[in-house]
Amino acid sequence: MEKIEHIGIAVKNISEANKIYETLLGSAPYKSEKVASEGVQTSFFRTGESKIELLEATNPESPIAKFIEKRGEGIHHIAFAVSDIEAEIQRLKKEGFKLLNDVPKKGADNKLVAFLHPKSCNGVLIELCQEIENK
Amino acid sequence: MEKIEHIGIAVKNISEANKIYETLLGSAPYKSEKVASEGVQTSFFRTGESKIELLEATNPESPIAKFIEKRGEGIHHIAFAVSDIEAEIQRLKKEGFKLLNDVPKKGADNKLVAFLHPKSCNGVLIELCQEIENK
Repeated sequence: MEKIEHIGIAVKNISEANKIYETLLGSAPYKSEKVASEGVQTSFFRTGESKIELLEATNPESPIAKFIEKRGEGIHHIAFAVSDIEAEIQRLKKEGFKLLNDVPKKGADNKLVAFLHPKSCNGVLIELCQEIENK
Repeated sequence: MEKIEHIGIAVKNISEANKIYETLLGSAPYKSEKVASEGVQTSFFRTGESKIELLEATNPESPIAKFIEKRGEGIHHIAFAVSDIEAEIQRLKKEGFKLLNDVPKKGADNKLVAFLHPKSCNGVLIELCQEIENK
């Protein structure tokens, strides 16, 4: 794990939350992106070498809709940057961690991503993410 | 806000959680500290410019004990580094954020800290922290 790539926060209304986090962090989101496969609208703020990702569900089946229904708004996941996501998946599986994705998938912000099961990490949903090189 | 200073994770058993996060992050905790005023035992791991703080309650009245009783283990707070915590408290109060501490208090890891109310930040407990200069 190289660093905290981002922290994902589940919100009900992303345009209202954008205003709050812009005031809090002192800068506007540098990117907004809809990820249809995950049923989310996202926005990203920079803070140091990391990012804050706000997530609003775009349909009732979205994992974010289910999270908010169960627990309310709040921190949804921590993402760590890795340089070789496939090697990291294999390493963690050998160490006994349960992966939600054995094969990396395309995530927001030009990343390959895979999630670890919260049961393996003291209730924390952890995402591994590797920047996709644009060739 | 300069960067993510740390992410605080509430755990039931810090010695077991230390092993999990040491394997995950690839390095042992660089510090363990008991904060009697907060009723917590902590351990800190480095990741990039930020840290992961594990927190175990040391008594049943600890905020961490209550958090785990209500929601189970998981992410408890995000801490942002600030250079002038008193100025930041005043700025955020003027912007309408609700503070849990109007006056900074001594926290773990040689920091002055103050918390924002989760209701002001989409369900996220946010800590401001400023390094205490050792003179």
